[in-house]
Amino acid sequence: MTLYGLENLPYGVFSTAGGVRRIGVRLGSSVLDLSRAEADEQILAGGALRQPTLNVLMSLGRPQRAAVRAQVVELAGAGALTAVPLADATLHLPFDVADYTDFYSSEHHAVNVGRILRPDHPALPPNWKHLPAGYHGRSGTVVVSGVPIRRPSGQLGAGVFGPSQRLDIEAEIGFVVGVPGSRIRTGEFADHVFGVVLVNDWSARDIQAFEYQPLGPFLGKSFATSVSPWVVPLDAFAPVPPPVQDPVPLDYLLPPGSGLDIALTVDWNDTRVSSPPFAQMYWTPAQQLAHLTVNGAGVRTGDLFASGTVSGPDRATQAGSFLELTRNGAEPVRLADGSTRAFLADGDTVTIRATATGIAGGRIGLGSVTGTVVA
Amino acid sequence: MTLYGLENLPYGVFSTAGGVRRIGVRLGSSVLDLSRAEADEQILAGGALRQPTLNVLMSLGRPQRAAVRAQVVELAGAGALTAVPLADATLHLPFDVADYTDFYSSEHHAVNVGRILRPDHPALPPNWKHLPAGYHGRSGTVVVSGVPIRRPSGQLGAGVFGPSQRLDIEAEIGFVVGVPGSRIRTGEFADHVFGVVLVNDWSARDIQAFEYQPLGPFLGKSFATSVSPWVVPLDAFAPVPPPVQDPVPLDYLLPPGSGLDIALTVDWNDTRVSSPPFAQMYWTPAQQLAHLTVNGAGVRTGDLFASGTVSGPDRATQAGSFLELTRNGAEPVRLADGSTRAFLADGDTVTIRATATGIAGGRIGLGSVTGTVVA
Repeated sequence: MTLYGLENLPYGVFSTAGGVRRIGVRLGSSVLDLSRAEADEQILAGGALRQPTLNVLMSLGRPQRAAVRAQVVELAGAGALTAVPLADATLHLPFDVADYTDFYSSEHHAVNVGRILRPDHPALPPNWKHLPAGYHGRSGTVVVSGVPIRRPSGQLGAGVFGPSQRLDIEAEIGFVVGVPGSRIRTGEFADHVFGVVLVNDWSARDIQAFEYQPLGPFLGKSFATSVSPWVVPLDAFAPVPPPVQDPVPLDYLLPPGSGLDIALTVDWNDTRVSSPPFAQMYWTPAQQLAHLTVNGAGVRTGDLFASGTVSGPDRATQAGSFLELTRNGAEPVRLADGSTRAFLADGDTVTIRATATGIAGGRIGLGSVTGTVVA
Repeated sequence: MTLYGLENLPYGVFSTAGGVRRIGVRLGSSVLDLSRAEADEQILAGGALRQPTLNVLMSLGRPQRAAVRAQVVELAGAGALTAVPLADATLHLPFDVADYTDFYSSEHHAVNVGRILRPDHPALPPNWKHLPAGYHGRSGTVVVSGVPIRRPSGQLGAGVFGPSQRLDIEAEIGFVVGVPGSRIRTGEFADHVFGVVLVNDWSARDIQAFEYQPLGPFLGKSFATSVSPWVVPLDAFAPVPPPVQDPVPLDYLLPPGSGLDIALTVDWNDTRVSSPPFAQMYWTPAQQLAHLTVNGAGVRTGDLFASGTVSGPDRATQAGSFLELTRNGAEPVRLADGSTRAFLADGDTVTIRATATGIAGGRIGLGSVTGTVVA
């Protein structure tokens, strides 16, 4: 059973040798050319598919989006669309990122990090179970999977400058806003969110540790954030019940909305070091969006908000960051080649993959997000 | 002596009844229509002036920008450009904001806030004199002066939801990036920065206080940030020596670059409550940009970075926020109508104005940024 069948058909932007950027969907190991399909009047989408990014398509209301989707599914099923082998396609950042927001919604991650970084305090901050904590990141440094990650330099302590010695990953799930809005209720989530991507929020722990009080993460995070090239439509996912929330959240965070049964894997070079489960995230994406906009702030087409690091209860096998996995370097991991790592070495490649339970009950793929560290 | 003479000529975007957005410069109490001047081939700017925003103009390299400027100055001086009375012009957000970053570079402000909010800790965080602390804000909610500010709601404490009761301002100076770059040396500042705006970073102190640990300000700041409609070219300002920095900053923050002699005023309704001096800011804008990009992060055309609240040494007359001015509400201020205020009431209007020492030695105006609070 393919992970990229008709029930998935994630959207992306591709080009072939020397060509312009075109919108396509992935079917199996091919890209189906939707820009050409609209140019040939196989699909009517008002020009939304003849664009170099997904933004216009994403901005369509849910009914119009569904109408486009129905045509794509029908034509793809009939084998009527031009197929380009994935191997011949270059994949690009699929959408122009407006604002980028990062949440902190895994209780296991927050507890792990609190114990490691703030051992003298309660593991969870006092506000953590009352609201989905988040912060704004740098949208201009969001890059597509495959772009090399240059090791950042910065202040590693008072008067100490140099390349980060504790370069880390954060395995996350990102949600891409299509339809603008403000004060979005949890029940309106699917009217505004277009789809789902994989996110690696690269993090320099030493830079972060010195800078983050009192204004939060800044240069320790802003050098690069990688996203997968395929945006899986929200409607392709089966909803799952979220965890019980105690205390009961305030009204604007209710009903909580659904979780998503996404299974992530993290490969450090050739070694699978972790398999974080998204289904156990404490705050749901609908609650994140409701919180983000409850103060009156608007979201725009192209806004990306990420879940925060996805970590499961077993730190040794389900951590979404190496900070947790190696307990801040105290417990290095051994890779398949026999070498050990506390944090990322130059030349290391990290690949995050994921599959999910689809709306039809089978598994669907989210592709991968990968990056190699360069000096 | 006018504040808006030929040595100033700030850029903006305006429209007249029913018309499209056009680029202009302010001269006295008129707007000179540069879009029309380029359409009529009075000015050659490669199309940069026939745009609905300043972004293309800002993206020009310094020599090209100077060449456009020279033509504008000559034609404006000759009275050869079409003048629209300011009273007939609607002023718009002058540029599309890419990323918005906010610094925290006034020592007086940081000390005041530290004493008020963290009385059990040293007034300055340990990293404060080592780096210009900053964080990313929400670029999608940057609005032009005059847009009403809707009072935000949010979590004011554990389980407490409602409209902010401690709505505040932050009087700041903003710098607008024209030419993209990364790892920008302090000496390259003027190659990348196009100009200067006034910023009011509206802040809900109660929302901020409950949410900000450990990820920094988020919903307490993200509902609205107002900027002045006129972007004063960087070259119009006289450089002034920055304050002595002790300890000496790391190499990448040296030489420190210039300060700017900008005098701000803050009017709360009809009462002038503060006059913050920008010349005393601890970190310079060149150091802010060097820090922002030293980790490899790029800046793009349209990036806005603000100084952080500008406060002088006299808290009673030079505070850039009402948190400081009223000592977190403990010392309300009396307005001209006899009423008193701790924080902003619905219907209140705050107007920040500024003038600066220009490159020719006279004063130049930065215009104003104003906003009225609505329920």
